[in-house]
Amino acid sequence: MVESRSFSELRKVLEDMNPADIAEQMAEIEDDKSLVIVFRLLPKEQAAEVFAYLEPEEQQRIVGRISDRELANIVNEMFVDDAVDFTEEMPANIVKRVLQSADPDTRKAINQLLKYPENSAGSLMTTELLRFKSEWTVAAALNYVRRCCGELASITYAFVTDESRHLSGVVSLKEVLAEDDDRLISEIMDDDVIYATTTEDQADVAERFKKYDVVSMPVVDGEMRLVGLITIDDVVDVMEEETTEDIYKMAAMAPIEDSYMSTSVFTLAKKRVVWLLVLMVSATFTGLIITKFEDMLKTVAILTSFIPMLMDTSGNAGSQASVSVIRALVLGEVHFSSILRVIWKEFRVSIIVGICVAIVNFARIIVCYYIGMYPVGEGQSIFLVAGVVSLTLMLAVICAKFVGCTLPLLADKVKLDPALMASPMITTIVDAVSLLVYFGIASLILIK
Amino acid sequence: MVESRSFSELRKVLEDMNPADIAEQMAEIEDDKSLVIVFRLLPKEQAAEVFAYLEPEEQQRIVGRISDRELANIVNEMFVDDAVDFTEEMPANIVKRVLQSADPDTRKAINQLLKYPENSAGSLMTTELLRFKSEWTVAAALNYVRRCCGELASITYAFVTDESRHLSGVVSLKEVLAEDDDRLISEIMDDDVIYATTTEDQADVAERFKKYDVVSMPVVDGEMRLVGLITIDDVVDVMEEETTEDIYKMAAMAPIEDSYMSTSVFTLAKKRVVWLLVLMVSATFTGLIITKFEDMLKTVAILTSFIPMLMDTSGNAGSQASVSVIRALVLGEVHFSSILRVIWKEFRVSIIVGICVAIVNFARIIVCYYIGMYPVGEGQSIFLVAGVVSLTLMLAVICAKFVGCTLPLLADKVKLDPALMASPMITTIVDAVSLLVYFGIASLILIK
Repeated sequence: MVESRSFSELRKVLEDMNPADIAEQMAEIEDDKSLVIVFRLLPKEQAAEVFAYLEPEEQQRIVGRISDRELANIVNEMFVDDAVDFTEEMPANIVKRVLQSADPDTRKAINQLLKYPENSAGSLMTTELLRFKSEWTVAAALNYVRRCCGELASITYAFVTDESRHLSGVVSLKEVLAEDDDRLISEIMDDDVIYATTTEDQADVAERFKKYDVVSMPVVDGEMRLVGLITIDDVVDVMEEETTEDIYKMAAMAPIEDSYMSTSVFTLAKKRVVWLLVLMVSATFTGLIITKFEDMLKTVAILTSFIPMLMDTSGNAGSQASVSVIRALVLGEVHFSSILRVIWKEFRVSIIVGICVAIVNFARIIVCYYIGMYPVGEGQSIFLVAGVVSLTLMLAVICAKFVGCTLPLLADKVKLDPALMASPMITTIVDAVSLLVYFGIASLILIK
Repeated sequence: MVESRSFSELRKVLEDMNPADIAEQMAEIEDDKSLVIVFRLLPKEQAAEVFAYLEPEEQQRIVGRISDRELANIVNEMFVDDAVDFTEEMPANIVKRVLQSADPDTRKAINQLLKYPENSAGSLMTTELLRFKSEWTVAAALNYVRRCCGELASITYAFVTDESRHLSGVVSLKEVLAEDDDRLISEIMDDDVIYATTTEDQADVAERFKKYDVVSMPVVDGEMRLVGLITIDDVVDVMEEETTEDIYKMAAMAPIEDSYMSTSVFTLAKKRVVWLLVLMVSATFTGLIITKFEDMLKTVAILTSFIPMLMDTSGNAGSQASVSVIRALVLGEVHFSSILRVIWKEFRVSIIVGICVAIVNFARIIVCYYIGMYPVGEGQSIFLVAGVVSLTLMLAVICAKFVGCTLPLLADKVKLDPALMASPMITTIVDAVSLLVYFGIASLILIK
């Protein structure tokens, strides 16, 4: 439509669309000029909303081509927390333009929020919240809501402060509406408020949202003065970031700050190479073990061919246990105190799993032998070899599950991130263990 | 306090506590009798709230020891969606007791919600929502809210229906409050509503919550009649479940339904053994490759000792790429259409990472040799061996990253779950590839 210059039709289509959908479509316009044309067709209020949904990349493309007046309109229309998010992502010269063009109140609010450290509760909150004084009546409060609510992000809860702006209670608008006009707010409010402090880490705040099942949380400063509000939609984003971090750590990577596609190749490489090197160097031990048993491998050559299978299976078994326990730790389902119950549980699981895997493996080796896939050295019975491999497999699975479930709990106990004890770390440890078991059993049974 | 029978003090302490905290404390009481004593001390309304926060295990312990009248009180006080969650977790005999003791309205609502398939939008919703008729004035609507809001879970948004109960719009209470008394709801409502249908999968609904950044979503039946409401706090739980499922699949486990601790040993074993067997059997290929090159391994025995390190490092490198891409797919950051950009990105990352790893590995082997850790066979230069291993390592890392980033995208394209293409699957494939590369290079360089 931009190409055919049918602007009035386009404007009509846009008016009926949801801002999130418009933002998604706009991200696909590659030509900067067309992008700005579409953006200018949006009515003022909708433009600010769509702008908040755009990715930083597109925001920057638009800001580069619009006037200071247009920029001012967008920033003043946006909710303060969205404006702050946007400002944080922009390069210094654009930040300067944004702050110059915003109106004084907005500028003050943005500046205040930009002060808080990244990932703190303060950086997550908005300052536009519904505030009641405890001495107000229901009628006065409702009157206040009707006058001021246009500017507020949410009026589901009102936060009550005393004369020195200290947070003293919370009341839902629902409760206020259900009460008689002449009751006092102080009588109906709940003075047991779940709150956050500005300097607290956002991950801790997200935890508390989940624990108490709340949809918004007031933020106070060091002196218990009410300064802002965090709503659950911002917390959902934080939770997603935290999960991504956990998943990255579990796959032996340092977490990235931005999305995968917008992270540079060099940054990605840097985030990945450190753990790869650590794990590679620690694999020196497995190499040493093999070197020690070199003579046996020369005598019973077929043993070598089972090394990858043994390593992979025990590694997988170990990471199943570790990932289960890490996730349960994150969700608060287990704690260090239940370590014995976890070990006992994993022990029984590993017996069942170990026996199944060993039986199938035994059968597989015999079948492969009879269809001629393995050359067995003279004097070696295939049943004996299959027995050694399967017995090792069972013991390795049991050891792997034990290591896999214990290490994350120990890491948590000594305040290390349990996610670091996931698959790659467990695999490296379990490899060494299963090789030792393998060669131990093999020298007992096969070598006389 | 229960032991010292100081009940009135305990009641005072409990009254000031948050329901979520009480539930947490109660879960630690091991004696059933004391548990019920504490529960009975709670005032009626608080009791229902605390009950909703308890784990199914504790809920069952309490229900087993209270009268039908007490049970009825709890169920009638709870929000319908909480009552349904509770009913779904209980064994059949308790469900019967619950339904018999609930009052007719509650029973009807519970029965209706229990009908919807598990994990559908219908099973997630509550029926207690704020409903306006489009022909109402602002004054009439506000009047209605003041009369009825006590029973509703949320009054942040009102959903507007026409005379045949079809969903026709949405309006926030904030907007209603800001308008003059005589305006019509139909004039101020937004008729572009983001809604869910009862039979839709809850994961899709959660997606839409994130995309449109909404805090609640109306649910309609097949004929667009408004039947319920999903609020973001329920969606947060769904998102967490989905993430747990993804993480389990990435670690080669079938997802479990309940928490780790409340899942039986047998179920855990069943969920884990299938993938373990599949991956074990597919490791037959790596065994075959090794058997093929047995003679070479006998001649240059030291080559065997590097197999675990090569397999682990390339496996880790591959799972780094696959996990990054899987997470980006889940977050909607990449799609199949960008497969070439992803491959090009991972290729450059793998060159950097591969070279770093190869250099460190070369140095490590030389150092280990000079401190006497490796016995090198006659006629073999340690530099040649280190060169073969390091070159293999670099190529294996590049292959691993390629396989790791391509498979999840292909899986997504053919509507398989990309999470199944994570570490264990990638490791098995990459093992075979790196062994082939290893023996290929070794026979070219070391064996004349």
